[in-house]
Amino acid sequence: MHKRDVIVIGGSAAGIMAATTVKRRHPEKRVTMIRNVSKTPVPCGIPYIYGTLKAVEKNIIPDDKLLAMGIEIIADQVETVQRADKSVHLAQHETLQYDKLILATGSKPLVPPLPGVELDNVFTVAKNPFFLQKIFTALQQARNVVIIGGGFIGAEMAEQIATLQQEMAAETSIALVEMLPTCLMLACEQEFGTEAENELRKLGVAVHTSSQVQQLGDDGQGRVRTVALADGRELPADLVILGIGALPNIELAEQMGLKADVRLGVAVNDQMATADPDIYAAGDCASKASFFRDEPSCIRLASVAATEGMIAASNLYGRGIRRSKGAVGAFATKIGERSIGAAGYTSRAAAAEGLDVVIGEAVAPNRHPGGLPGCIPDTRVKLLFRRDSGVIIGGHVCGGEATADMANVIAVAIQARLTAEDLATMQYATHPLLTASPLSYHIMLAAEFAATQLAD
Amino acid sequence: MHKRDVIVIGGSAAGIMAATTVKRRHPEKRVTMIRNVSKTPVPCGIPYIYGTLKAVEKNIIPDDKLLAMGIEIIADQVETVQRADKSVHLAQHETLQYDKLILATGSKPLVPPLPGVELDNVFTVAKNPFFLQKIFTALQQARNVVIIGGGFIGAEMAEQIATLQQEMAAETSIALVEMLPTCLMLACEQEFGTEAENELRKLGVAVHTSSQVQQLGDDGQGRVRTVALADGRELPADLVILGIGALPNIELAEQMGLKADVRLGVAVNDQMATADPDIYAAGDCASKASFFRDEPSCIRLASVAATEGMIAASNLYGRGIRRSKGAVGAFATKIGERSIGAAGYTSRAAAAEGLDVVIGEAVAPNRHPGGLPGCIPDTRVKLLFRRDSGVIIGGHVCGGEATADMANVIAVAIQARLTAEDLATMQYATHPLLTASPLSYHIMLAAEFAATQLAD
Repeated sequence: MHKRDVIVIGGSAAGIMAATTVKRRHPEKRVTMIRNVSKTPVPCGIPYIYGTLKAVEKNIIPDDKLLAMGIEIIADQVETVQRADKSVHLAQHETLQYDKLILATGSKPLVPPLPGVELDNVFTVAKNPFFLQKIFTALQQARNVVIIGGGFIGAEMAEQIATLQQEMAAETSIALVEMLPTCLMLACEQEFGTEAENELRKLGVAVHTSSQVQQLGDDGQGRVRTVALADGRELPADLVILGIGALPNIELAEQMGLKADVRLGVAVNDQMATADPDIYAAGDCASKASFFRDEPSCIRLASVAATEGMIAASNLYGRGIRRSKGAVGAFATKIGERSIGAAGYTSRAAAAEGLDVVIGEAVAPNRHPGGLPGCIPDTRVKLLFRRDSGVIIGGHVCGGEATADMANVIAVAIQARLTAEDLATMQYATHPLLTASPLSYHIMLAAEFAATQLAD
Repeated sequence: MHKRDVIVIGGSAAGIMAATTVKRRHPEKRVTMIRNVSKTPVPCGIPYIYGTLKAVEKNIIPDDKLLAMGIEIIADQVETVQRADKSVHLAQHETLQYDKLILATGSKPLVPPLPGVELDNVFTVAKNPFFLQKIFTALQQARNVVIIGGGFIGAEMAEQIATLQQEMAAETSIALVEMLPTCLMLACEQEFGTEAENELRKLGVAVHTSSQVQQLGDDGQGRVRTVALADGRELPADLVILGIGALPNIELAEQMGLKADVRLGVAVNDQMATADPDIYAAGDCASKASFFRDEPSCIRLASVAATEGMIAASNLYGRGIRRSKGAVGAFATKIGERSIGAAGYTSRAAAAEGLDVVIGEAVAPNRHPGGLPGCIPDTRVKLLFRRDSGVIIGGHVCGGEATADMANVIAVAIQARLTAEDLATMQYATHPLLTASPLSYHIMLAAEFAATQLAD
């Protein structure tokens, strides 16, 4: 049998980060990454295939850096893993043996138990170039598109398909159906989700919130024709996209006899280690704790996956153990003209847990003076602090191109457990062409507003 | 005499932040801000008057928020302050009495002892609309402009005047003279300063580094005509701008009998309090400690001033004392197509102090995939960590619009004293249209590269 030091199963965020981390820390190790696709799509880039990039192959993670580091890449299906002799059996390649194994098998789109979900032209968003191309081809024929699910994937797909439709000569329609009262509601403050909806409407998307899909109707030839809502409305639909979440891929782990939960994933500790001392798991397939609470988290994000891949790989060969801090949930998106970022708790989630929070909010132009190019006058930051400790537990941003990095200032503050007082009195870089004025740098000012309330 | 609760002398960053903070925390207090200009220019926006905004009045801090909060604004010259009876004597208004006084008198441009510096058309960059208009008028006539000093103000003025010259029909030239080997060298890594120089050259600026000005020559009629360098070269110059730094305005404090140093400013403790229990000082006029070392700092920045104004004002009426953490130095600028950000130490400053640092550096596109709009493929982050503790002490960014907020992720990390290990394993928000991929988010990756070295 062919022996490898480290075998990584899975080639997306967690897998790539795991493979490169091992190789960087231990260049002498033989590292092999096995993936079930010939090319790996950029996971978060998938919506942009359909409007901006207009080609599946423009949204591929390049292999060149991995190959240059000496990482072997095998595109094949893993059939079984035998832990007894530490072997990986492949569909079309010879069996390999590992010293250490990292499972990074990712997740699969959740398919809701809806009548008609099996009809033709009903698609999930799977991270597979072949499948993504099928959606693209179908979209070019479709006239009435319905997207089910108004989270990040649903909203971004709607925005991009609306862009594509605007360029089509034919009569088209696009609708987004979301169960909750606003889009992006699990990650973002409600008013920020409303901003996203407004942008979608500007692009011609009919946004149906607080709306449940009851069934998909067919055209008599096995193809979707309508989406029926619980309130009796019926939307025309010759193409439906399901974007309602993902479930961990645990089949391989189960076959291997590792503990795994259908919703939470492969059981790992905070070192990303399974019960088998030579097997780790990372990314969407792995169980994760919440950063905030002593309970599991269902947050599945490429950024969490990347961190976990790095942690798992760092722990393979000791020298200082790395531990996952648990999933924080740090997000960013751009819908139309608005960029929205978030980290940690929403007000709604905090209220649901009975947390007493103090909110600081700042609205100011992201330029100073406001007449400078690129100014978004109502750039907004909203921060959530625990009343008992003053520690930041969430933050939300709506603004321009720097939104994601403003969310990252907040994400770092959350992970460093800083207080409103800390953030109010820290110094921040500002510049007329790039940020708010030093008098109204949003994060400082929002923290100061909260600190003033906390001092009362 | 007319009694006020709080009088703030100075109407720029520190003064405004002090006045608004008092009023926010104590709405019942009578707060008066006295300034020696009728309108306050946005200090960092001054260079943009000359190229982008093309009008002094487009770069003014609006008074409306202050007035709406009930802050009284008096535009007048303070002649003397009598601490014995707590009175402020004004040139054209009645004498006022204070309960608490905050000095925010700012700084004045440093005028070097150069022969010829007194000639006509030799300007400093003073924060006074009348004076700034004089420069603008003179620039519209000038053909050969020389800027002395390649720090932020000098580089930004050069960029903006180059823009202005490109729109002028006449034959023009612009040169920048800097003593040190690269522009922006006190704040930025040398290679980042070089990028700024390259941008300036693209705009037609002749950049003379490692060059010392010897004297300014006249045209026989009291007006500048040449700038002579120490190496014998002579640059044509019918307009010269001096941008070589600033000194604290301490005259008033000295007249009041408060301790002050010509270079360091009005002596204050970490609560921004002077020796007089009713008098505080904040901003460019006030002494400051370094965040890093037990020694004074000469960093004068609007962002530091704003923080100090907030701290001084918060401490006037007790309820939890706020302390300044000392100046970190968090900067951002945009020169041509490149935005540059920095926080804390440069490699050069660390070496000068004999600090043993580990450097982590990451270069990656600020989009994923890189084909998305706005991609800067060589967006770069360089982080400096102490080898002994792994704690971050500096960071440098060169990239796009998010540069300042990437510098702020670093600035917060420095002020929270995070380690390479912390920053490598934290989670960050990423998005295809806004940031690097989660596999190569610059700050995470640069920290991981440093952490790998530190683990060796």
